[in-house]
Amino acid sequence: MADPRFFDSKGPFDLHKVIALTEASLAPGQSASQDDLYQKIYDLEALSQAGNGHLTFFENPKYLDEFKSCRATACFVHPNVLEKIEDFQGLPLLLVHKKPRRAYAVVANAFYPDKEIEAGVSDRAMIDHSAKIGKGVSIASGAVIEENVEIGDHTAIDANAVIKQGVKIGARCRIGAGCVISHALIGDDVSMLRNVSVGQRGFGFDPSPEGHLNVPQLGRVLIGNDVEIGAGTTIDRGAGPDTIIGDGCRIDNLVQVGHNAQLDKGCVLVSQVGISGSTKVGKFVTFAGQSGSAGHLTVGDGVTVAAKSGVTNDVSAGQTVAGFPAVPVNIWRKQVVALKRLVKKS
Amino acid sequence: MADPRFFDSKGPFDLHKVIALTEASLAPGQSASQDDLYQKIYDLEALSQAGNGHLTFFENPKYLDEFKSCRATACFVHPNVLEKIEDFQGLPLLLVHKKPRRAYAVVANAFYPDKEIEAGVSDRAMIDHSAKIGKGVSIASGAVIEENVEIGDHTAIDANAVIKQGVKIGARCRIGAGCVISHALIGDDVSMLRNVSVGQRGFGFDPSPEGHLNVPQLGRVLIGNDVEIGAGTTIDRGAGPDTIIGDGCRIDNLVQVGHNAQLDKGCVLVSQVGISGSTKVGKFVTFAGQSGSAGHLTVGDGVTVAAKSGVTNDVSAGQTVAGFPAVPVNIWRKQVVALKRLVKKS
Amino acid sequence: MADPRFFDSKGPFDLHKVIALTEASLAPGQSASQDDLYQKIYDLEALSQAGNGHLTFFENPKYLDEFKSCRATACFVHPNVLEKIEDFQGLPLLLVHKKPRRAYAVVANAFYPDKEIEAGVSDRAMIDHSAKIGKGVSIASGAVIEENVEIGDHTAIDANAVIKQGVKIGARCRIGAGCVISHALIGDDVSMLRNVSVGQRGFGFDPSPEGHLNVPQLGRVLIGNDVEIGAGTTIDRGAGPDTIIGDGCRIDNLVQVGHNAQLDKGCVLVSQVGISGSTKVGKFVTFAGQSGSAGHLTVGDGVTVAAKSGVTNDVSAGQTVAGFPAVPVNIWRKQVVALKRLVKKS
Repeated sequence: MADPRFFDSKGPFDLHKVIALTEASLAPGQSASQDDLYQKIYDLEALSQAGNGHLTFFENPKYLDEFKSCRATACFVHPNVLEKIEDFQGLPLLLVHKKPRRAYAVVANAFYPDKEIEAGVSDRAMIDHSAKIGKGVSIASGAVIEENVEIGDHTAIDANAVIKQGVKIGARCRIGAGCVISHALIGDDVSMLRNVSVGQRGFGFDPSPEGHLNVPQLGRVLIGNDVEIGAGTTIDRGAGPDTIIGDGCRIDNLVQVGHNAQLDKGCVLVSQVGISGSTKVGKFVTFAGQSGSAGHLTVGDGVTVAAKSGVTNDVSAGQTVAGFPAVPVNIWRKQVVALKRLVKKS
Repeated sequence: MADPRFFDSKGPFDLHKVIALTEASLAPGQSASQDDLYQKIYDLEALSQAGNGHLTFFENPKYLDEFKSCRATACFVHPNVLEKIEDFQGLPLLLVHKKPRRAYAVVANAFYPDKEIEAGVSDRAMIDHSAKIGKGVSIASGAVIEENVEIGDHTAIDANAVIKQGVKIGARCRIGAGCVISHALIGDDVSMLRNVSVGQRGFGFDPSPEGHLNVPQLGRVLIGNDVEIGAGTTIDRGAGPDTIIGDGCRIDNLVQVGHNAQLDKGCVLVSQVGISGSTKVGKFVTFAGQSGSAGHLTVGDGVTVAAKSGVTNDVSAGQTVAGFPAVPVNIWRKQVVALKRLVKKS
Repeated sequence: MADPRFFDSKGPFDLHKVIALTEASLAPGQSASQDDLYQKIYDLEALSQAGNGHLTFFENPKYLDEFKSCRATACFVHPNVLEKIEDFQGLPLLLVHKKPRRAYAVVANAFYPDKEIEAGVSDRAMIDHSAKIGKGVSIASGAVIEENVEIGDHTAIDANAVIKQGVKIGARCRIGAGCVISHALIGDDVSMLRNVSVGQRGFGFDPSPEGHLNVPQLGRVLIGNDVEIGAGTTIDRGAGPDTIIGDGCRIDNLVQVGHNAQLDKGCVLVSQVGISGSTKVGKFVTFAGQSGSAGHLTVGDGVTVAAKSGVTNDVSAGQTVAGFPAVPVNIWRKQVVALKRLVKKS
């Protein structure tokens, strides 16, 4: 059970409500009475730990044994699973759904929605008189809101965050403690975790033995709607063009996004990834942990970049690439095998 | 045009002033009247986007077509370019300069100089009475200045930055919001972006199954003049010797510099680079993104370390190295090719 | 000598006290009078720089010459060294100890103990009335302590740190400036350097072209006793299980620990390491700089992961692995050699 010290549960929920919420269906071969449907679900749990009063899900075939011995009250399963079941006795009530994990996530969000913000401006926050603050906004102690900033309705700015002049933040955003934002226009439903740095000057200078000359970075950071940015991540403003983070992107911790880089919708950048300047990343691209891309490249829609890889050339849509320099993953695997064989011979 | 929400332009400038500022010359074959020289330049733009009233530059031969169709009022070009031009008709007024990009940067700095700081100490800053604060200094809300700190003239300390006891910061420095600095002596014209951590204890302990024993880190961080340090970067103090950042260094975001490391003048560390303890880096060395060096090594002047490489041995001056372990780049390229051939055979 | 601007020395100490503190013994062949034992040690120095009144140590055979010409008053040495000495004339007084470096560290801690904290709560700190603050606690300017937080005796919370609701921190902890902690239960003698982010939501969402759905992260971060966490490091809370950092761990700067990861006692994560979610790391495992592990793996006790490596499969206890994908280090070395030979042939 989630620690009540930190989490407030909106539960319990009756099982039929859970079914309605997810549009799950019952298993044809498993009988379920009205009483069954009015059982209370008190909490969600992992498959191996779920017990009476719990809801869980089974999706990864690796955990078949855990499923067979599962004692949860109810369990989301994929339709495929039904073919393998001879006897429903002892199993949880099965809630059939094409995406068991997603259904579970939907219910988790109902049990534990993001904490509602308490509207109010701390008297220990520093807010410039020219700033426009929307309805139901929360601004915590030590936050600094500079001139001409605009904060949208129901947005929360956490303690000691610094929002510098002219920044515009949309509605229902969550800006975590210690974030520093400048030169940015931000959409709605954007969440930044802690100590994020957005809008600082890009790494641009003209190198010379007489001394490197800084090139003024005259662009901005444009962030769409429904974006999440992890702790410690740094997103530089553009040099003249803008740095762009598209709708629905999910960026993990300690990620670097360089000046003029553009991420299209739904990109996923896992922790410690680095995207160099002026690289264009297509829709729904995933960069796995510690991978990176050189600058001035184009990465097509739906590409997956394996962990620790380095993209050094354009990547066409739909490919999975790995290694450094990154190559199609089947070729990378062959390289790994070839290198092993080489050692055996020697 | 740079968004006036965020940028204040000092322009427009007459074209002859731009020429004077950069010591550019006119193209012999292109006639320019007095009127031409008194045209106003309203802004700077990228080559492909520049139009009437704009100044731009052409340096990368990849963009020759964009140059030929460029509609800017004026354009910096290298002398080489003149040989290729048969007809000046329709071209911008050419400003001939050996380093077009640098000339453009010089003008950009004139149009968009770093914002002048507004001298003044916020009443929401916490400043120890023993601290020495220079002339024209700006200290923002929530900044903390501890005992015996010295801040040089015209330096700006941004919101919620923490300058711990005894730290000395020179003149005309910019310390970004959320920076935390201790055990450091810092020169003039140093810029730290946001959430930088300088002077914390180096990662030194004597390992043992009975428990790791911390070794007190008794050195400092010494930073020269004209240094820039990116967001989220961490620079540890030395163990007894100091950690040293030489004049003119440019350090990007999320870089780690370990205890006792020394960077000579003009080094460039791109984002997410890691320099291990006690490594000495020569003048004008470049570490590209996500590369790193093991400890106790010497990297010679003018070395370039390719992205994602790992330096595991001393590198002599002037070399370019790549891979892990890092080898001369031509050898690394051959290794990449050899590995590809190996796969084709199999 | 450590800069008195930043460091307060508790010395000098009489040499016999140093000997008592470390249980070192004198060299049988070297005569030492009572006067010798009452010499004062004024400071500690590196072997090559130590002089009269200094204490040093010799452990790395690479520095034999420096040892032979060392002018320190006293020097820790391993018993082995005595066999190689024919004539003690001119040498420092030798303090024989099985672990010279550790003995030196013990004395360094006596000379330069962690600064005692000055108990007291800044009137510029924001402390919720429900928070429980122990004896002798120090809370600095701009720190924010939210509801139901518990801070143990003699713990120091530095400037602008943010401790969010319900967090429990043990005794004698040091939480550095700019740290942000939530959803965490923390033991005694824990030190976090600057700008650390602990307890933010793990990177969990159900991906979909219709939009990624966040999965609520319902776990916590559990940190044991005697743990050190470096600047800028990010530790995510668990998804339901907890993220666990065992007693005695040493985590460097800019490290990422993903949700549900577990580190057993005494682990060492060097800078910029990334441990993916749900990976279990055994006792006294070392991940060298910029290395990482994929998720859902098990790394056995005493494993060493070389710099820049990527662990992609379980690793059994005691192994040293290198490369990506990580293999036993002797195999990795053979791969490096094989690749070099391949290039020579071509």
